Amino acid sequence: MKAVAIVGIGIIPFGRRDEDSLVDMMATTGLMAMDDAGLGDRPVDEVYVGNMASGMFNHQVSVASALVDKLALFPAGAERIENGPASGGSAIKHGYQAIASGLAEVVLVVGAEKMRDVAGPRATEIVSCMAQPEAEYIYGVTLPGLAGMFARLYMAQYGITRQHLAQVAIKNHDNGLLNPNAHIQMKITLEGILTHPDATVNNPVVADPLHLYDCCPVSDGAAAVLLTTTEIAQSLGRPFVTVAGVGQATDTHALHERQDPTDLKAVTIAAQKAFAMAGCTPADVNVAELHDAFTILEIAESEHVGFFEKGAGARAVAAGETRIGGSLPINPSGGLKARGHPVGATGVAQAVELVMQLRGQADERQVKGAQTGFALNFGGFGNNVVALVLRRES
Amino acid sequence: MKAVAIVGIGIIPFGRRDEDSLVDMMATTGLMAMDDAGLGDRPVDEVYVGNMASGMFNHQVSVASALVDKLALFPAGAERIENGPASGGSAIKHGYQAIASGLAEVVLVVGAEKMRDVAGPRATEIVSCMAQPEAEYIYGVTLPGLAGMFARLYMAQYGITRQHLAQVAIKNHDNGLLNPNAHIQMKITLEGILTHPDATVNNPVVADPLHLYDCCPVSDGAAAVLLTTTEIAQSLGRPFVTVAGVGQATDTHALHERQDPTDLKAVTIAAQKAFAMAGCTPADVNVAELHDAFTILEIAESEHVGFFEKGAGARAVAAGETRIGGSLPINPSGGLKARGHPVGATGVAQAVELVMQLRGQADERQVKGAQTGFALNFGGFGNNVVALVLRRES
Repeated sequence: MKAVAIVGIGIIPFGRRDEDSLVDMMATTGLMAMDDAGLGDRPVDEVYVGNMASGMFNHQVSVASALVDKLALFPAGAERIENGPASGGSAIKHGYQAIASGLAEVVLVVGAEKMRDVAGPRATEIVSCMAQPEAEYIYGVTLPGLAGMFARLYMAQYGITRQHLAQVAIKNHDNGLLNPNAHIQMKITLEGILTHPDATVNNPVVADPLHLYDCCPVSDGAAAVLLTTTEIAQSLGRPFVTVAGVGQATDTHALHERQDPTDLKAVTIAAQKAFAMAGCTPADVNVAELHDAFTILEIAESEHVGFFEKGAGARAVAAGETRIGGSLPINPSGGLKARGHPVGATGVAQAVELVMQLRGQADERQVKGAQTGFALNFGGFGNNVVALVLRRES
Repeated sequence: MKAVAIVGIGIIPFGRRDEDSLVDMMATTGLMAMDDAGLGDRPVDEVYVGNMASGMFNHQVSVASALVDKLALFPAGAERIENGPASGGSAIKHGYQAIASGLAEVVLVVGAEKMRDVAGPRATEIVSCMAQPEAEYIYGVTLPGLAGMFARLYMAQYGITRQHLAQVAIKNHDNGLLNPNAHIQMKITLEGILTHPDATVNNPVVADPLHLYDCCPVSDGAAAVLLTTTEIAQSLGRPFVTVAGVGQATDTHALHERQDPTDLKAVTIAAQKAFAMAGCTPADVNVAELHDAFTILEIAESEHVGFFEKGAGARAVAAGETRIGGSLPINPSGGLKARGHPVGATGVAQAVELVMQLRGQADERQVKGAQTGFALNFGGFGNNVVALVLRRES
């Protein structure tokens, strides 16, 4: 099995991007990654696009073929890889498999979603199409609704308060201010979103106990990575990042069918698989990008991945351990909360952030000396999770 | 690189299946394939679903995770693989890569589409979302429209008549009558669809020069194959089919941007790649499933794959060479024309038909002594094509 490296990255500012089409965003970031890799005339063999719902958002399907056309990468093979909000992580996994099998040497992986082509309520409805159709979707359950119910249960079980959740949001907004590609560029404070008399107006309830600033925004965006063999990466003669571990796991579709709905089994198993493949443990991780579509998820994931004991994740946030400069910085990019969450782009954007951190190119948000990075991309409501361990090689 | 075998198949009758959901169809055929393989307690490592547009047709995304849930295959990895009408072929390709890389040993590949949940005109509109958005879709071009323009050009260039096209349809309807899973179970004649005074009523124009019986129907359906290593296949102790070649190629998105729009370059390249990998030539093929979404495509593809010289494909049909019993039977299943074309299912259904033929289990439509089979799955309007060479091993 061939070992796989990331030799190029591309990302654009997330947010509302009315001027670009979905394919424009994919092409821009794809070109950036190809350019960054400096592979010269070596052809791209395969093009995988992580995207959830281009048909519903943009009236376009087969967007991977469209990207090949836009970049004139004929006759490269191309597919759209869909796994809801974990489509980006899944696309990287398939790129990994293509190279590991020896069938491809160079794979361009782009994650993208253009969600602002539709109105906000329609975007929420499209996203909710990932819920269980007969037990959740049909009753009008949305992802914020599921997250609200999960949050209530998790908070009760582990003594987590709204203040803990707010501290995740505050940290990630602070990090987003250091990331020029983040959708949300705005400092928030505990007073402004929680304790001030106007806080209920500034920060209205979305799905109790989750309020506006507990939820990621609806964003347009794209990100890209260029994968190749470590042999080719070495031949380029500069430090590069290897995909040391890839793990994935599934769980029941309906949240209520899990024996303990606070137990994110797929997160635990996906992370364990990725660490086993990489031959390391959570303690070896220097920087992590977790899937904080809702603040409660960053805390719950940090525990299920094994960074903290169950119940200790909230205290770690409160103690500043997960800030840049803390013992384990989580979401230095701003996370989904501040960078934004263009659904299919997120998993690839996480990898891009880790590569920047591992290369020492993350500017003001640099985690010093980062050698090993971890990303968790959470599909559905935790029913299909992809974990990556990336490592700097020099 | 591990060699890959197909050890299980599943398919259900295509047509209008109001009683089943998309996931029901996937689960039924998936179980059939697992049952057929007889792998016992060996777990399924990965689940790939070829599907174009479950969001638009069925208000559901992330259907691969939903299938894992329905079949309780946790914690198997799972993705939906989308490449328009070639989604099924692409899903098999990704299953191949997963096993070839050594990362998975058993992969369930299901192709499925449930198109009859929406009205006919809406189905045509959804399918047209694969056309080039700025140069085709925006002007109202549909796939029958593109096929009509292509047919006119191709017929003029190679002296093909409407009678030649009709002979493709007649053959495939005849074959469909031998296939209990075919959507269309109806004999048609040259008189009924072409020469009788009522033929213009029976067989109205859809996109001149293509008439109703030149076009595949809009179908619900699913099909599945179970892939594993040839080592495991051998351990099962019975004849099996290997995936000897997988080829894919892309071309310009917009049909009019091709230097010669009658030249289906991606078909030629995909087939060449598959044959090169299998170490054989078109002359070695005993049975083929081609992508006859429109009758003209069966003729054009049979030439571009290399079965016949350019311009000789239509004469071969007229001479009966492509009938069961002829020198190269094409679409013994009835093809898309009669079996039906549930978009994401088609590529997998083609593989299922070839496996039945290579195992000698195709009953009345059996191609005697078939050893090597070929399938061509045509995405977009020929802008992303997947070719497979399957071979019986004993």
